[in-house]
This record gives sequence, C-alpha cells and structure tokens, in this order.
Amino acid sequence: MKLSARNVLAGKVVEVVLGTTTAHVRIDIGGGAIVTSSITNEAVADLDLKVGDAVSAIVKSSDVIVGK
Amino acid sequence: MKLSARNVLAGKVVEVVLGTTTAHVRIDIGGGAIVTSSITNEAVADLDLKVGDAVSAIVKSSDVIVGK
Amino acid sequence: MKLSARNVLAGKVVEVVLGTTTAHVRIDIGGGAIVTSSITNEAVADLDLKVGDAVSAIVKSSDVIVGK
Amino acid sequence: MKLSARNVLAGKVVEVVLGTTTAHVRIDIGGGAIVTSSITNEAVADLDLKVGDAVSAIVKSSDVIVGK
Amino acid sequence: MKLSARNVLAGKVVEVVLGTTTAHVRIDIGGGAIVTSSITNEAVADLDLKVGDAVSAIVKSSDVIVGK
Amino acid sequence: MKLSARNVLAGKVVEVVLGTTTAHVRIDIGGGAIVTSSITNEAVADLDLKVGDAVSAIVKSSDVIVGK
Repeated sequence: MKLSARNVLAGKVVEVVLGTTTAHVRIDIGGGAIVTSSITNEAVADLDLKVGDAVSAIVKSSDVIVGK
Repeated sequence: MKLSARNVLAGKVVEVVLGTTTAHVRIDIGGGAIVTSSITNEAVADLDLKVGDAVSAIVKSSDVIVGK
Repeated sequence: MKLSARNVLAGKVVEVVLGTTTAHVRIDIGGGAIVTSSITNEAVADLDLKVGDAVSAIVKSSDVIVGK
Repeated sequence: MKLSARNVLAGKVVEVVLGTTTAHVRIDIGGGAIVTSSITNEAVADLDLKVGDAVSAIVKSSDVIVGK
Repeated sequence: MKLSARNVLAGKVVEVVLGTTTAHVRIDIGGGAIVTSSITNEAVADLDLKVGDAVSAIVKSSDVIVGK
Repeated sequence: MKLSARNVLAGKVVEVVLGTTTAHVRIDIGGGAIVTSSITNEAVADLDLKVGDAVSAIVKSSDVIVGK
C-alpha cells in the first residue's frame, strides 16, 4: 500500500516501552537520528513490534513544524 | 527554548515551494532522508526560510505512525 | 505494510480537487459516510489518485475527537 | 456548535478502555467500520461516555492519510 | 455537542484569508493572544465565517507542544 | 529557535499529572483560558516541568478546529 504521507522514513526499532494504553517506540532512522512514536499498546501487539524490526516512521507533512 | 516534542531532527533546507496560503519545505536530515513539512506562507516569511538554512524538523511522537 | 494507525477505513475516491499545493480528496467509506482528506498535490500525482480508485482513509486514534 | 472539521462521522460507542491518563473509545460508524479514538480519561468522565451512546467521531481533513 | 478535545477556547474572528483550497482564520481569544487556524475554504463557507463572529478555537491536548 | 507553528501562546504551568507513559500539563495562558497538553513523561523530565514554570503552548494552525 502506497501512502499520501510525504514522510516515510525507513529505520530499525531500538526500543519499545508499553504504558497502560499507550506505548512508546523508538526507531533509528540512520544518520544519528532516533524517531520516537507513541502508538496504542494494541498496535504494538497487532504489528508484533520488537527491537530489531525493520519499520517505517510515517509522518504527514502537515504534522512537521520547522524550527530555525 | 526546549520543546516537549520528542522528535527534533536537525537538517538543511533543500527546497521551498510557496502555494497561495500553504508552503512546502523539504529538509535533508542526513542518512539519505528528506523530510517534507507543510507550513503557512506567513511562517516561511517569518522565519525567512531559504535553501541552505540549518533548521530542525519537529514532530510530536503522537504524530508518528509506525509501518511494518 | 501494516500500520500502527488504528483507523484504516476502506473506501472509494469520489472526488479529487487540486489547490496550488494542497488537494482535497473525498472518499466514500460506505454506510453513507464520506471522508475528506487534505494531502499534497504531489501525493495525488504520486498515488495517481482518480475517482473510482479503491483506497483506505487512515487516521491515528489520537487524531479522533469524540463529540456527544 | 458547527465545526470546521470536514469529517463528523455519526456512530455508537461499542467500547471504552481507561488507561492511567489516556482512554481508548471505539465507535461503530456503520457500514462495518469501527473508529478508535484516544482521548483523556478526563474527557471520558466529562462527556459521561458509555457503551451505547450516540456520538460523532470528528477528524480534521489534514489528519487523514490516503493509502492506495 | 460537547467535545472530548480538552481545549475549547472562546474568541472572536479577526481575519479570514482564503487560499485556493485552504483558508487561514485568526481568532482573538483575549489576554492578547491571537490563534491561527488553517481550515478548508469549504469549511469557511459552511460555517459562514466572518470577521466579528463569536467562535471557539478547538485543539486536542495531544496536539499541544510545550516549550520552556 | 523560532518556530513555523503560528500559535505560540505564553503561559504558566498550573498542573502536571503523570500517567504510565503519558502526562497531562495544564497551562494558564491568561484571559481566563487554561490549555491542556498531553506529552510524554520523558518530556516532563527532560524539560523539568513544574507548577509555576513560564512556558509556551505551541500549536500548528492545521491542528486548530473552528467551532461556531
């Protein structure tokens, strides 16, 4: 499935932390950059996310703020 | 100013395209990854954004979807 | 690719309106519900979106407000 | 109150799961589609949300990704 | 209709700027603070938004970044 | 650092509630308006957020819904 989101950044899961309903997943996208995503615990189970998994960090362009 | 947003990705502006009210800014964050941000034209002028500028691409962790 | 987003609603494109940089795409997801998505013109071209296309409307659970 | 959000999808609450601060609410919007919303526990109490309630799932068009 | 969004800030429209598909609406919420919202042109027409209108600026708590 | 986000509302922290992974921070922005932000616990620690802190509530214009 191709996505309209302009940012599909390939990377590797380096950490998964489960909360009561919300989990935090950290993804190494290379170049020294680590991206953090907060998703539902259900999504972690649904995607069977584990450290080492090859994943994409997906972000809509309207959700990116520029700082200068 | 320090931000609560977990993703503050350093990079360089490689393109700025102005629409009627909304602009698209593309940022090279290294490692071969280019991030696209859509912001208001007003913000482009306010930050005086130009190709070559050192900037940060800022994204809340709740705005990052994981794909596997 | 499986997504962490909890809302992946199958539907059919019923309208595509291009702006200068931003396009609006309307998707019939059945049950009388039409979902509107605003994406970049680039995404419309990239996905070669046309009326009649079978698509998914994808929304993170953190982007859904409940009204009662 | 009328909203600028283009997506106001009528439905019925089928599940409410409370976390420590964040709750997940699942809404049947008909046509076989279930929408998941993650909101604060405070909002669940404020709206007195219960299974069976008639509600709207509200989403800005800029928060909808298209997949094809 | 009551909303799960935790931020419903009452104010008055002070400016409406239409783009090709996207409009910018500026709302004076008092205390010297002006909030800018970008919505679809369709929403502006649908709500018949004009300068002087009493409106609410509505934001989900997950869309608010804290800077210190 | 200057931000492209159009809404940078100055205020004072009046409450911080930690969940398992997600915290809620309430900010008095004056004029009787209190803004709620949900951020990661990690961000609260990272910014050393405490009641009384002078902060900014930052929101992209594309994340503001107008209600009338």
